[in-house]
Amino acid sequence: MEFGKTIVLKNQPKIIGHYSIVGPKEGKGNFGEFFDYVMKNDCFGENTFEKAERKMLEAAIMGVVQKAKMTIKNVDVMVAGDLLNQIISSSYAARAFEIPFLGVYGACSTMAESMAVASVLVDGGYCRNVLCCTGSHFSTAERQYRFPLELGNQRPPTSQWTVTGAGSCILSLEGKGPRVTSVTFGKVVDWGVNDVNNMGAAMAPAARNTMLSHFRNTNTSPKDYDLILTGDLGKLGSEILVDLMDEEGVSLGLNYNDCGQMYFKREQNTLCGGSGAGCCATVFNSYIMKKFEKGEYKKVLFLPTGALLSTTSSQQGDTVPGVCHAIVIEN
Amino acid sequence: MEFGKTIVLKNQPKIIGHYSIVGPKEGKGNFGEFFDYVMKNDCFGENTFEKAERKMLEAAIMGVVQKAKMTIKNVDVMVAGDLLNQIISSSYAARAFEIPFLGVYGACSTMAESMAVASVLVDGGYCRNVLCCTGSHFSTAERQYRFPLELGNQRPPTSQWTVTGAGSCILSLEGKGPRVTSVTFGKVVDWGVNDVNNMGAAMAPAARNTMLSHFRNTNTSPKDYDLILTGDLGKLGSEILVDLMDEEGVSLGLNYNDCGQMYFKREQNTLCGGSGAGCCATVFNSYIMKKFEKGEYKKVLFLPTGALLSTTSSQQGDTVPGVCHAIVIEN
Repeated sequence: MEFGKTIVLKNQPKIIGHYSIVGPKEGKGNFGEFFDYVMKNDCFGENTFEKAERKMLEAAIMGVVQKAKMTIKNVDVMVAGDLLNQIISSSYAARAFEIPFLGVYGACSTMAESMAVASVLVDGGYCRNVLCCTGSHFSTAERQYRFPLELGNQRPPTSQWTVTGAGSCILSLEGKGPRVTSVTFGKVVDWGVNDVNNMGAAMAPAARNTMLSHFRNTNTSPKDYDLILTGDLGKLGSEILVDLMDEEGVSLGLNYNDCGQMYFKREQNTLCGGSGAGCCATVFNSYIMKKFEKGEYKKVLFLPTGALLSTTSSQQGDTVPGVCHAIVIEN
Repeated sequence: MEFGKTIVLKNQPKIIGHYSIVGPKEGKGNFGEFFDYVMKNDCFGENTFEKAERKMLEAAIMGVVQKAKMTIKNVDVMVAGDLLNQIISSSYAARAFEIPFLGVYGACSTMAESMAVASVLVDGGYCRNVLCCTGSHFSTAERQYRFPLELGNQRPPTSQWTVTGAGSCILSLEGKGPRVTSVTFGKVVDWGVNDVNNMGAAMAPAARNTMLSHFRNTNTSPKDYDLILTGDLGKLGSEILVDLMDEEGVSLGLNYNDCGQMYFKREQNTLCGGSGAGCCATVFNSYIMKKFEKGEYKKVLFLPTGALLSTTSSQQGDTVPGVCHAIVIEN
């Protein structure tokens, strides 16, 4: 196996603000009390789900700027992306604010990619404050990637539930907050899964590759972290990852968990759990950051994962490649 | 107006390799003799246009690695994107090689975005060799963004022709080549154009904003550059830009041109000229780089532009936002 590329950040950018906004179902899930804002309904006052998704991202941008006690003019660049074709939620949200924009795409790993790029921009002294943002919406993702909701299709047991929500954070060398100390850019890994309703199995090999790369490149092991948190492998995918790591002699214990697996309550019927770019983005920018602020975490390895398919690639018989980037946050 | 963010690169990464591959129509255009490879047909031995597009990107990756006299293992990260939904051409091309991957999306400005991110990664000493790549394919773009080719729709006079081609380059502090000395991240600008067959008009305001930002931030003016080259505004869009800049008291003279406008010969019937992420990517990584190598250019301002719409945003009544990032290359 070839390894991912790890970058150690000398100046250690701080996460000086974080914000999360979610839909009503997400608000009733396991992290309900930690989110900054829970929408009353999935439409958020808009007449299409796509416009609601965009508005969530705009709210996440405004929200994090306020929480970081700055104005939008203090933001040098926004690094953002989402799951919709041509990442329109992010670019139209960027249009609403007068800030330079770098669009990124890593499917559900987008939060990690935006934080990794932002970390480098801040660490190198190229920018002062960089805003990271991503999100997803259950109803836009279902109709773009799978079926119109009106069809009422049955969901297979390996499927996950796209989180309706957006998360954002601001990285800076000034101010206070947990520090980003290293990032590992992962490579695209494809072990031949072609079931588009089993994203966990498709992404687990990428998580394995990036995790092994990160441990090797930084000379660390699972016991060095208070928490090792993958993005949205879900219940099946995270079990596969534990097995795969076991085969490599790396035992993931009680300090390992997965945002998708943790997101919803059992009675919410999401089958394998949460997914979507908004899944790990809202967990990280609420629950995880609040635990850091309380001093409960000293060092967290955050590994959002993404499945890089499109409906066209599936229709043309391609299997599903995955990618995973790793971020280390320390207090 | 709020300004774009300019980053001055202290270590000035060098472009140590460049490669371009195009389709047969492009090979018969104005830059035909400068491309590294001209395909015999648009299918490139594949059974779908999408797979042909992906294969072009793979060829551009292999080609540039060879021209930079290295192996794929010397590449730390690839920063790439394209116009297809979920940037599948880039991510599936990344799958073919064992290199970490950062997916970016800036529509036809993607070459600039990937070079800007790569420049920072190399300049800050975070990576040694970073590969930038993007491309587009006339037939995949037409059927994804507009109509199936089989319909034989008439093309409006303001329309442009998506270039079938892919371009790539490698940035490094070691080796020889023209240097990237500064980059300006542009903001998303929307002046309300809603004609999806007039991308030039939609993108010109973004080019204006980034160009004005760049001149202001670097205290330069058009006369400081041997060439000021926008991405693919096309014939109409570049005329609009010249007018807009004139209104700001900035006169763009004979050292200004546009890749889209220059790409095809008049008798090739492309109306307003070339477009697509492959347009400026193949011009830059052939003609422009070869002019640098011959010593004909000392300082070029390269401004790829992108229209950030999707079919969904258009169908829901949205106007077309544009973005433009600027790169300064010096010899």
